[in-house]
Amino acid sequence: MTVNVSHTAEIQRLFNEAAGLNNDQGNPRVKAILLRIINDLAKVIEDLDITDNEFWFAVDYLNRLGGRNEAGLLVPGLGLEHFLDVLQDAKDAEAGLTGGTPRTIEGPLYVAGAPMGEGEVRMDDGSELDHATVMFLEGVVRDNQGRAVAGAVVDLWHANTQGNYSYFDKSQTPYNLRRRIVTDAEGRYRARSIVPSGYGCAPDGPTQECLNMLGRHGQRPAHIHFFISAPGHRHLTTQINLSGEAYLWDDFAYATREGLVGDITFVENPTAARERGVQGARFAELTFDFQLLQAPHVDAEQRSQRPRALQQA
Amino acid sequence: MTVNVSHTAEIQRLFNEAAGLNNDQGNPRVKAILLRIINDLAKVIEDLDITDNEFWFAVDYLNRLGGRNEAGLLVPGLGLEHFLDVLQDAKDAEAGLTGGTPRTIEGPLYVAGAPMGEGEVRMDDGSELDHATVMFLEGVVRDNQGRAVAGAVVDLWHANTQGNYSYFDKSQTPYNLRRRIVTDAEGRYRARSIVPSGYGCAPDGPTQECLNMLGRHGQRPAHIHFFISAPGHRHLTTQINLSGEAYLWDDFAYATREGLVGDITFVENPTAARERGVQGARFAELTFDFQLLQAPHVDAEQRSQRPRALQQA
Repeated sequence: MTVNVSHTAEIQRLFNEAAGLNNDQGNPRVKAILLRIINDLAKVIEDLDITDNEFWFAVDYLNRLGGRNEAGLLVPGLGLEHFLDVLQDAKDAEAGLTGGTPRTIEGPLYVAGAPMGEGEVRMDDGSELDHATVMFLEGVVRDNQGRAVAGAVVDLWHANTQGNYSYFDKSQTPYNLRRRIVTDAEGRYRARSIVPSGYGCAPDGPTQECLNMLGRHGQRPAHIHFFISAPGHRHLTTQINLSGEAYLWDDFAYATREGLVGDITFVENPTAARERGVQGARFAELTFDFQLLQAPHVDAEQRSQRPRALQQA
Repeated sequence: MTVNVSHTAEIQRLFNEAAGLNNDQGNPRVKAILLRIINDLAKVIEDLDITDNEFWFAVDYLNRLGGRNEAGLLVPGLGLEHFLDVLQDAKDAEAGLTGGTPRTIEGPLYVAGAPMGEGEVRMDDGSELDHATVMFLEGVVRDNQGRAVAGAVVDLWHANTQGNYSYFDKSQTPYNLRRRIVTDAEGRYRARSIVPSGYGCAPDGPTQECLNMLGRHGQRPAHIHFFISAPGHRHLTTQINLSGEAYLWDDFAYATREGLVGDITFVENPTAARERGVQGARFAELTFDFQLLQAPHVDAEQRSQRPRALQQA
């Protein structure tokens, strides 16, 4: 028995009224988007014969998702954030904007306002040095002609050895493993940090609950997030995903892309370690260069206005 | 420039993988529903050329919506809960199940486990008697043949004079204006309560924020919610919306329906008031009868398994 009512005049009147089409207040763009989404959801309910229990489970799930602030985690988990990247790539190709370091997802764990530094910047607060591996990360930011970009801001953030991010993990010091580095005259950024571990969704959170229903894990490979910006150049949101990681090509957030795998090298050498100020014999090196595209217009120099966390002093 | 990628093999692989189609764990029904929703959302993004800022505003909105536990308030506000009622009506008509008191939306403010009583039950805790109008509410529950149903459970809840509901409004005593009344041998329920005021969405909440963007108010007429159940009869979720209310036919939640308007009468009579135990001269009377349908199967005797609040002792 298939019974549909969403196409009827009664329901179309209802949805038009609900989306605000009968008034001239509010925001016409929001009205158009919500009218579409309301109609789409009604069709899903009819086509898939969604039961009351299923519908109200979903409504309750949305409350729990937002209650844990995990909407920005579910979105990459469902592939939609990667889809946005592929769609933007296609729009760029159509506009002749190709080349440069690939973009990939931002994820929900950026915090604005990290300390700025020049030259080699220390990112970790030293609290994990009894078990962490020191990582020396460096590279050059270049323009679309391959020339070094001096004064670019490399805004990077990554997890600790537990896969947790400062600010969201209240046990870490403010801005631990978050820095902004201004490139030098040769376009170089250099950081001393620690090797991050892969991130995993909270096992008791709503994102993992959804992934469980989909038969999926909620793990990511170890990775380092980057915002890179410079006047005249297009803002770049990307990540380095570390080679050798179990989840490198099995990332629940679908962030790993060709061209974004960082070849991390582990060095066992007491002399080299001492020379670089590292206790013990072991450290890691990672070199990764970025290439920016020219900004097609001034707005393209900035990241999106996505609402983001800001550390309170 | 229209650029679409959602139909490509690359994106279809992504969405199929994200929805868990590449594994045999999890819940096939959830996989089918989410695959549909992911594809629908991708099409919305492409068709309406959703910008990054719009997309991330929506993600942030979902976090704020759930953070305030308002998903169950937005759903009626967008007309989707009324749509579910109209769809169920159409399914009933197809199955030959017609007649009886119309159903209407439950809303998000039920609390399970209200005190039970027989005969005339007092619903209010007396705290508003200095400004509230006492309301005598009564009626008969009948079956589809018009015969009184004894032993039916009339589970009713309504707002106070501020339009607020106990449990959600922590200033009220537990279960204030929430009771379960067992009908007597004549099928009667009788309550002494106070006349409720209309409900309004929290002005600083995400539901009202959305309604503002749609150019809409977030007000409801004064109303009384009912769950009515009895063995052998179909569970009824409905409301009485009070006559004479400004928002009676302009309800942001679209709950008012023909057949569900309660004709409330205000009496000014000191003698009658004294006889009924009311201070002063003024009180209100409301009589409303309900008719239940036969349950087509035993599950239909119960309300949906929607997650609901339960007052903690």
